[in-house]
Parts: sequence; C-alpha cells; structure tokens
Amino acid sequence: MAVGWFYLSVLALCSLGSMCILSTIYWMRYWHGGFAWDGSVLMFNWHPVLMVTGMVVLYSAASLVYRLPQSWVGPRLPWKSGHAAMHLLAFLLTVLGLHAVFEFHNHAKIRHLYSLHSWLGITTVFLFACQWFLGFSVFLLPWASMWLRSLLKPIHVFFGASILSLAIASVVSGINEKLFFSLKNGTKAYSSLPSEAVFANCTGMLAVVFGLLVLYILLASSWKRPEPGMQAEREALLRGGE
Amino acid sequence: MAVGWFYLSVLALCSLGSMCILSTIYWMRYWHGGFAWDGSVLMFNWHPVLMVTGMVVLYSAASLVYRLPQSWVGPRLPWKSGHAAMHLLAFLLTVLGLHAVFEFHNHAKIRHLYSLHSWLGITTVFLFACQWFLGFSVFLLPWASMWLRSLLKPIHVFFGASILSLAIASVVSGINEKLFFSLKNGTKAYSSLPSEAVFANCTGMLAVVFGLLVLYILLASSWKRPEPGMQAEREALLRGGE
Repeated sequence: MAVGWFYLSVLALCSLGSMCILSTIYWMRYWHGGFAWDGSVLMFNWHPVLMVTGMVVLYSAASLVYRLPQSWVGPRLPWKSGHAAMHLLAFLLTVLGLHAVFEFHNHAKIRHLYSLHSWLGITTVFLFACQWFLGFSVFLLPWASMWLRSLLKPIHVFFGASILSLAIASVVSGINEKLFFSLKNGTKAYSSLPSEAVFANCTGMLAVVFGLLVLYILLASSWKRPEPGMQAEREALLRGGE
Repeated sequence: MAVGWFYLSVLALCSLGSMCILSTIYWMRYWHGGFAWDGSVLMFNWHPVLMVTGMVVLYSAASLVYRLPQSWVGPRLPWKSGHAAMHLLAFLLTVLGLHAVFEFHNHAKIRHLYSLHSWLGITTVFLFACQWFLGFSVFLLPWASMWLRSLLKPIHVFFGASILSLAIASVVSGINEKLFFSLKNGTKAYSSLPSEAVFANCTGMLAVVFGLLVLYILLASSWKRPEPGMQAEREALLRGGE
C-alpha cells in the first residue's frame, strides 16, 4: 500500500464531502432564501442539507472508519463503538431531514410520499434503520457467536454500500425534482440552464463522484484491516456449516 | 455453495429483469400511446424502454456471465467473447435509446442535456463506452501482460458495478422526471398518485431491486470462478510492483 495514495484519498474525500455539504447550503441560501424551522418553505430547505450531510457525507465517514490504518491495531471495541455512534448521528440528522420535509408538506397541504424520489428515499432510510439495529445487535452486543458474525459480515458490508448507493440515487432524483419545481417560468426555465440549474446539477454530480470514491475505498481498495483471526473464523464457519 | 440458491437467484433475476422491461413497455404503450420512429413523442417512448433493456437488464446479464458455473471450467476465451459481445449489444441498444430522445428533442425544439438526469445518464453511457474499450483492449486482445490484467481486473469489476449503479440512479431520476412532465393537471397530478404514477413508481422500485440483486451476485456472493492461476498472478504482481 502506498501511504501517499491513502492520505491523498482521505484529503480528496474530505474536500469532496465538505464541498457537497457547502454547495447544498449555498444553493438553499442563495436561491431559496435560507433556513427556518417553522413549517414554511424555509423549513423545507433543511431537507436537502440534512440528507446530504447525514445520509451521504457522515454515513460515508462512519462507513470508512475501518479503513484508517490506526484502526488496524489494538482492540476493536472502541472503533466499533465509534462506527456505530457516527452512524447513529448520521441517522439522527437523516430523521431531522425527513421531519423538515414532512412538516413543510403538512403546513403547505402537500401530500406526502408520492414521487419515486420519496419512495426510494424512505426505503433507503428504512434499510438504514434495519442495518443499524442489526449491526448493533450482532456486532456490538456480546451475545452473537463468531460464526454468526462471520456469516453476516459480508452481508453487512454489502448492504452498507448499497444503502449509500440508494442514498446517492435519492439525492440525484431529489435535486432533479426540486429544479423542475423551482425553475418553471420562461426566462428561468430549467431547460435554459440558468445559474441555479448549473450549480445544483454540479452539486448532484459532486455527490455522485464522492459516492463512487467512498465505494471504491470501501469495496475495492486494499486498505482493509488485516484479519489475524480470519483463518480461525473461516474454519469455525466451515465447522458451523456442516 | 448451495446449487439450489444459485438457480433460485437466476430465476429471480430473469423474472425481475423481464418484469422491468415489460413494465416499461406497458407504461409507454398504455399511458403514452405506444411507439414510432418518426421524431414524435412516440419516438421518445423508445427512450425508457431501450435504456432499461440495454443499460440495465442486458448490461446486468452480460456482467454476470462469469457467475455461471459452466464458465468456470474449460477455456476462457469463449466466455470472454460472450461477455464482450453481450455488452456491445447492450451498448448499441443504449445508443439507440439516446438517439430516440435526441431526435424527439430536435423535432420538438427542446434543448438537449439540461437536467441532472441527462447529465448523469450521459456520463454513465460515456463511462460504459470507456469501460468497454478498455476491457476489450486489455482483457480480450492478446497483447496485455498477466501483470497488467491482474492490476486492472479489480478496477474493471468495480467500474462495471459502478456503471450499473449509475444507470439505476439515471433510471430512477428519469422516471421521476417523466412523471412530473406528464402528470401535471389537477385530477391527474403526480401528487394525487393516479394509476400511472403508482405503476411507474413500482417499475422504478423494481429496477432498484433488480440492480441490488445483480450487485449482490456480482460483488458479495461466492459464485465466482475459482482462479487456479491466482497465486502465480499475485506473485507476478508483486514482482512487477517492486
């Protein structure tokens, strides 16, 4: 492993993640009047910011905890706890982000959960909740056997990556939907690509690039904790499967 | 590996893939007047059908060729050629799908490539083209060394899975966008969830489930060709990397 590449990737991730959050905030402040927590459209503006921050950036940071070389040595429990705590924080921001849009809909008498964006988004958050509870129960609480953990770990990793992919798909469809809502009239139609459209499209593409980089480091890079107990776990797995 | 599970998954994949294509055709026939190749909106209707067929279902089938146990024994070249040929067919359908929407835009004087859906979609097709040419040059033509192939294989697999994920995100944002276009007036507004909205939302969710199942089999299942030359390749890789 080239250490230089690793730290370059961390730098790229931090920069891209910060840019995703800051761009979403800027989009909502500059073109949509900023933020409030009062059921108005200014409350809706928290929705994209909290979803991108919680469900994309913080979720990714929490997922990548085990890729830090510092986590490869010493006891695992502190890192596992950090992984679970960061995901819990990401989940709380996500729930606040959902609350923002539901409250706005209630006040504006708009129906909930009709668009494909909302169907996919709510499914993603539901899967995230299941994943967190399953992860907490099996990998953090002490009752589960090594056999069960080995069996569930690849599924946990796969669903972790899948939930991030679904979150990115939700972000893309959400930005697209919001721009069709807000850019309607002739001179500023979405199809004439006014500055807001270019800015928000770029924000969406940035989230896609960020997501791909996270998935690459998570799934395809060699920056993984070497597992000394791997062989023993596999043997236990084989014995358990007989 | 439980053989039963494998064939159950193949059955599930074939059913889900066929349902994705048939649902998209039904959506365009029943609610949008069917198909033509004349620049009218009936030509646009080919766009979702060809993208789902080429970029999602056929692309997935082509990607999963090496998961068939039949491909694990005997010479690799026929399977590699099949993999490349199926992807080429998927790419051709994709290009036809793009042609359908560009021609419709030309005739209706609608600008090209302004929505985030179109930005993401065209990026996905561009990455697919790069992936195909790189794959063809490195893995099918005889010039590349074992070292180069070993180096590029994980990247090829990662981008293969990423392109499918981006295609699914494009499909979701595309269905969402189309429904906002076509369901505008009061009694049939998207937000009142008329039958078309429910049907097309379900089609989108079906594509997501199909994509996740494909990615699971591709990345996380144990249905991979056992590689007898693996050790030799790794040693060559290490020697080459010194």
